[in-house]
Amino acid sequence: MTTANLSPTPTIAPFLKAIAQQIRANDGYGTYRNWSDELLLKSFVVTKAQKREISVEGEVDPITKGRILAFYRAIAYRIEGETGLLCQVVIDLSHEGFGWALVFSGRLLLVSKTLRDAQRFGFDSLEKLEVEGTKIVNSGVNLANRFPEVGRI
Amino acid sequence: MTTANLSPTPTIAPFLKAIAQQIRANDGYGTYRNWSDELLLKSFVVTKAQKREISVEGEVDPITKGRILAFYRAIAYRIEGETGLLCQVVIDLSHEGFGWALVFSGRLLLVSKTLRDAQRFGFDSLEKLEVEGTKIVNSGVNLANRFPEVGRI
Repeated sequence: MTTANLSPTPTIAPFLKAIAQQIRANDGYGTYRNWSDELLLKSFVVTKAQKREISVEGEVDPITKGRILAFYRAIAYRIEGETGLLCQVVIDLSHEGFGWALVFSGRLLLVSKTLRDAQRFGFDSLEKLEVEGTKIVNSGVNLANRFPEVGRI
Repeated sequence: MTTANLSPTPTIAPFLKAIAQQIRANDGYGTYRNWSDELLLKSFVVTKAQKREISVEGEVDPITKGRILAFYRAIAYRIEGETGLLCQVVIDLSHEGFGWALVFSGRLLLVSKTLRDAQRFGFDSLEKLEVEGTKIVNSGVNLANRFPEVGRI
């Protein structure tokens, strides 16, 4: 076995699990049907050295866009689970890799992130991905609890 | 003079004025420098018969996208003027002409509209455009006044 550094524990962390679920939920053609969670998540790890090699000129390629969408859909899904709100995800990317990632419910923006150099979207490790995703989820849940009326308009 | 039906009064209505301003503000190449407000606004009028002739298959063309953006930028500009908030505009259009138009400040979504058949974006008349735009502005201003704390996060 050489997959030890892909999955830190036998049980996959909850946010990573949510990403894998979102990829499968939107896999209309069954492309990833036979892929393990570890394999699905592998492309989310982009080291600093790898990032330097990715050009930020021109369009963000569809596969990278798909990863960004899966990341924010997983965040929306986890916030929905914690709050019972129904969330929408909007990713607005310019041709230069700049833009917005938004998760909202009613009139409340639970997540509002500016994207830049989106061509290089990725995380140092799966652990970092889990930590970063969970942090954004928690911040969204806090906001939902703080302004319940706005989230349910 | 045959322009009587383009401009109902010698003074242009305030929301129409805001659209013309937004087009000029984003006219980096000076394409519209010598165009009158009436000429700039003309393309926002799309009659029902004209709409039927526009295909909703495939991408929304860049000129139509530009009109949608100018419309929501004008809304954002008018809400800013009324509330002192700083607004962001995000238009997210799928390849099929479906999507979202969002105007937000802080964590408050002042305008949240689903778009469909965006290829056919337009209004029966300039009067309708003025009425429809003003209605959306007022609804955004009301929301900003109702949840000032969320708009200023």
